[in-house]
Amino acid sequence: MPLVQDRSFMNMALEEAQKAAALGEVPIGAVLVVEDKLIKGHNRVIIDSDPTAHAEMLVIRKAAREIGNYRLVGSSLYVTLEPCIMCAGAIVQARIGRLVYAARDERYGAVESLLQSFDLGLNHKPQVISGLLQQQASQLLKTFFLKKR
Amino acid sequence: MPLVQDRSFMNMALEEAQKAAALGEVPIGAVLVVEDKLIKGHNRVIIDSDPTAHAEMLVIRKAAREIGNYRLVGSSLYVTLEPCIMCAGAIVQARIGRLVYAARDERYGAVESLLQSFDLGLNHKPQVISGLLQQQASQLLKTFFLKKR
Repeated sequence: MPLVQDRSFMNMALEEAQKAAALGEVPIGAVLVVEDKLIKGHNRVIIDSDPTAHAEMLVIRKAAREIGNYRLVGSSLYVTLEPCIMCAGAIVQARIGRLVYAARDERYGAVESLLQSFDLGLNHKPQVISGLLQQQASQLLKTFFLKKR
Repeated sequence: MPLVQDRSFMNMALEEAQKAAALGEVPIGAVLVVEDKLIKGHNRVIIDSDPTAHAEMLVIRKAAREIGNYRLVGSSLYVTLEPCIMCAGAIVQARIGRLVYAARDERYGAVESLLQSFDLGLNHKPQVISGLLQQQASQLLKTFFLKKR
């Protein structure tokens, strides 16, 4: 997929992140492209009382339900922040083909920062692209946490 | 909590695992005890078309929804198999107080086998007890996979 399309999907994920911020949730958004479907979602942990309701998890669940298969073969997942270990594990479970994320999560990121989950010898390994629109994603997070203080 | 109670909850988790097997799902069950609630669940990945529908995830989600808080402070989670990295991450996100599991998952277990997720410096670390009724849990899995062949 050409970079221009990646950028367009990541921009949608950033719009989703802004929706999370408007709800008082940590601003993280995700877009999942599988077959002819485009699924969007954002972090909803507090509002849904669901500790697993990270943006990535919500789009993975919704996409799998819509296509009627827990394996999202050939899918691409766009997310504004490096996934945590829960989400990295879900990406493997769902057989996500390609993961594109924006900002690194130096503290809890489980793709390259805290841990390299996809190099543990799990039963699937997605292709990974990182850093796309990272400044915009980081800025959203910084602004959110500054306001919270 | 005394061992006799742990054993009783793990037996319930084993009954849940049998329900999963009856559905053609990998037989793994879980029980979550939080406040005055006891929540049971079993693996439903295929039947729900949900790659995140591991037993632990389902009881965590349900419990959080029922108490209206994504943090399950003071909770105990019983599961028949060592959690994978997705579930270990969810256990941290949910602030599970105490994790009791039966059999080890030598290949994908993310508590002591493949990875020690709770020693990575994440923002919560549950108490862990492992090996309770492990033979029963392993036997269920072995029987299931033998039949599948």
